[in-house]
Amino acid sequence: MAGATRELTVDLGERSYPILIGTGLLASAGSLFAERGFPVKAPILLVTDASVEERYAPTVERSLREAGYTVSRAVVASGESSKSLAVFDDLITAALEAGLDRKSTVIALGGGVVGDLAGFVAASYMRGVRFVQMPTTILAHDSSVGGKVAVNHRLAKNIIGAFYQPEFVLYDMDTLQSLPIREVRAGLSEVIKHGLIWNESFVQWCDDNAAKMLALDPDTLGYALYEGCKVKAAVVSKDERENDLRAILNLGHTIGHALEAVAGYGQLLHGEAIAIGMVGSARLAARFGYDPKISAETERIFRKFGLPVRIPSGIDPDAVMKAMQHDKKFTEGNMVFVVPTSLGSVEIRSDVPAAWVREIVEQLREENGEA
Amino acid sequence: MAGATRELTVDLGERSYPILIGTGLLASAGSLFAERGFPVKAPILLVTDASVEERYAPTVERSLREAGYTVSRAVVASGESSKSLAVFDDLITAALEAGLDRKSTVIALGGGVVGDLAGFVAASYMRGVRFVQMPTTILAHDSSVGGKVAVNHRLAKNIIGAFYQPEFVLYDMDTLQSLPIREVRAGLSEVIKHGLIWNESFVQWCDDNAAKMLALDPDTLGYALYEGCKVKAAVVSKDERENDLRAILNLGHTIGHALEAVAGYGQLLHGEAIAIGMVGSARLAARFGYDPKISAETERIFRKFGLPVRIPSGIDPDAVMKAMQHDKKFTEGNMVFVVPTSLGSVEIRSDVPAAWVREIVEQLREENGEA
Repeated sequence: MAGATRELTVDLGERSYPILIGTGLLASAGSLFAERGFPVKAPILLVTDASVEERYAPTVERSLREAGYTVSRAVVASGESSKSLAVFDDLITAALEAGLDRKSTVIALGGGVVGDLAGFVAASYMRGVRFVQMPTTILAHDSSVGGKVAVNHRLAKNIIGAFYQPEFVLYDMDTLQSLPIREVRAGLSEVIKHGLIWNESFVQWCDDNAAKMLALDPDTLGYALYEGCKVKAAVVSKDERENDLRAILNLGHTIGHALEAVAGYGQLLHGEAIAIGMVGSARLAARFGYDPKISAETERIFRKFGLPVRIPSGIDPDAVMKAMQHDKKFTEGNMVFVVPTSLGSVEIRSDVPAAWVREIVEQLREENGEA
Repeated sequence: MAGATRELTVDLGERSYPILIGTGLLASAGSLFAERGFPVKAPILLVTDASVEERYAPTVERSLREAGYTVSRAVVASGESSKSLAVFDDLITAALEAGLDRKSTVIALGGGVVGDLAGFVAASYMRGVRFVQMPTTILAHDSSVGGKVAVNHRLAKNIIGAFYQPEFVLYDMDTLQSLPIREVRAGLSEVIKHGLIWNESFVQWCDDNAAKMLALDPDTLGYALYEGCKVKAAVVSKDERENDLRAILNLGHTIGHALEAVAGYGQLLHGEAIAIGMVGSARLAARFGYDPKISAETERIFRKFGLPVRIPSGIDPDAVMKAMQHDKKFTEGNMVFVVPTSLGSVEIRSDVPAAWVREIVEQLREENGEA
């Protein structure tokens, strides 16, 4: 189970921070805080959710207390519904009641929901306190790196938030062993995405190592997460506030978000929805004249990982098209897509005819029977 | 009424921005937006409050529309109660309904409440859009510069917020002509504070020009606001995120905030409360062995401006002391004060005995009869 801890740095000048990936790391939280000079007198708020609380919170708390820190725990309900202003308000109350001051730290122990929510608390409480990410899902290898934090509004997802970088990311792979296989597959979808946008040889490697990745072999998984985080870190380093380059991280997300919205959040996991979306983007590439092999290979790899590559029956193409119009990634009414130009590189195109998108949405659905 | 427009820059590297101070400026909002490259296609949200809406919003909107911009208006109730998460949520709804995108702008047209609230909307909506301050009070010469934005929580003031700089500050002094005299005096209290912490000759100038300042003589007022903003800008430039130096801007605020809280917000205006607080800090200086003249002069000048220098009867010293313990400016339980070392310079002391503070609070109250 043990193995080397991998470390990489997200290079953002004075806001640079390390990502530690390994096993048995949660139990060393206290010494990591001490080494990095987190003040012992400043109370810590550990934010987690009901599904991971019992399993991992005591380990983190024990380690921090042994190092002399004071920790309070705030538990939110599992799932996207916790990313609300109401739950945010409750967490601010918890922070005040726990006596958090300007030198305090908010820890996010959980998946993307906990990270986004606790991150916005850290960004806003007293105009910003220290923030530490402890992801417990594969999907969170993506969301925990790059500093995008947010809560939802009833009219739009992630509309209230900030760019706010953590002090460090502590990625203990032991927490992944208890994930349901469907979530493992969906999480690996974002890992593969990082290869598809940036690194052809990593796509190849994923293809070759699919079985070991799905079996959560620690060393294989550690390397996959390290490479995935490395791509995310490289992109974020070049464009922290999503002015241009960072948009390439949205490969598959335009169709993906629309599918999630139409299916009802939670029906289709995020990683599943973007797998379908990436197949759609690869078909757009073919329409733009790029090698049709991109589309065939993309589809083959996602199938190998047991991920969906077709739009589930019952999802109305009209609703999908309409949902895309509301996606905030459309600037000033133009239709913008991240389109692959090969396996391992992409470009951002703002000249995508809505008719092509519609056609591909229909295709992916019509073929559903033969998926 | 006319006169030269004064301009100064808040120097924050890539986040630097200008402050324009003059008359007739609201009517030139549209051309200023165009000159500075604000995109015409991106909708604008003008946030204002019920007390200034009718008088000034139409001028700004007309000017923006003539320059080709689309503007929606969101009006909040006047007063501190609007600095809540509930009103913040309403403004996010308004921004979504007005179709604001990532290139959009939120304008704050009003005093400190509107600036703080609209600024937090600008900081959070889509993780940050453009922000423009159009202050309409003297007090807002302080709050509109420096990027501190926030809303209140039921347990604490300004506890949810961000450091978020505007694109520019447009300070049209015509809006000050309709202020009640009590608010004029209270606003000038922060202007004088900027002299007291940084610039002895400006304190002298205020003393010499009190009558013209109180009469809102445009050129005198323009100079006073320019000098006040200059001090604020200099301090903020050196310490944007309030790590150390910026704390000197809190001269008078520890006692002042406590008085506001105990009196009930609105009973004592902010500028009145900090005038009393600055007299208290000057007395602390005497206890530390600095020239007792500081205290006598501070008191004399505030009296000259018609500002209170004694704690109103009916305010319980115990309650004031207790309120100070909850002030977030106390780090890790120590008692910290900004203390003048002369008229025009201050130091931050973290070794202030609570007994001295208590004694001074009692003095300022006991003497109340002879004030």
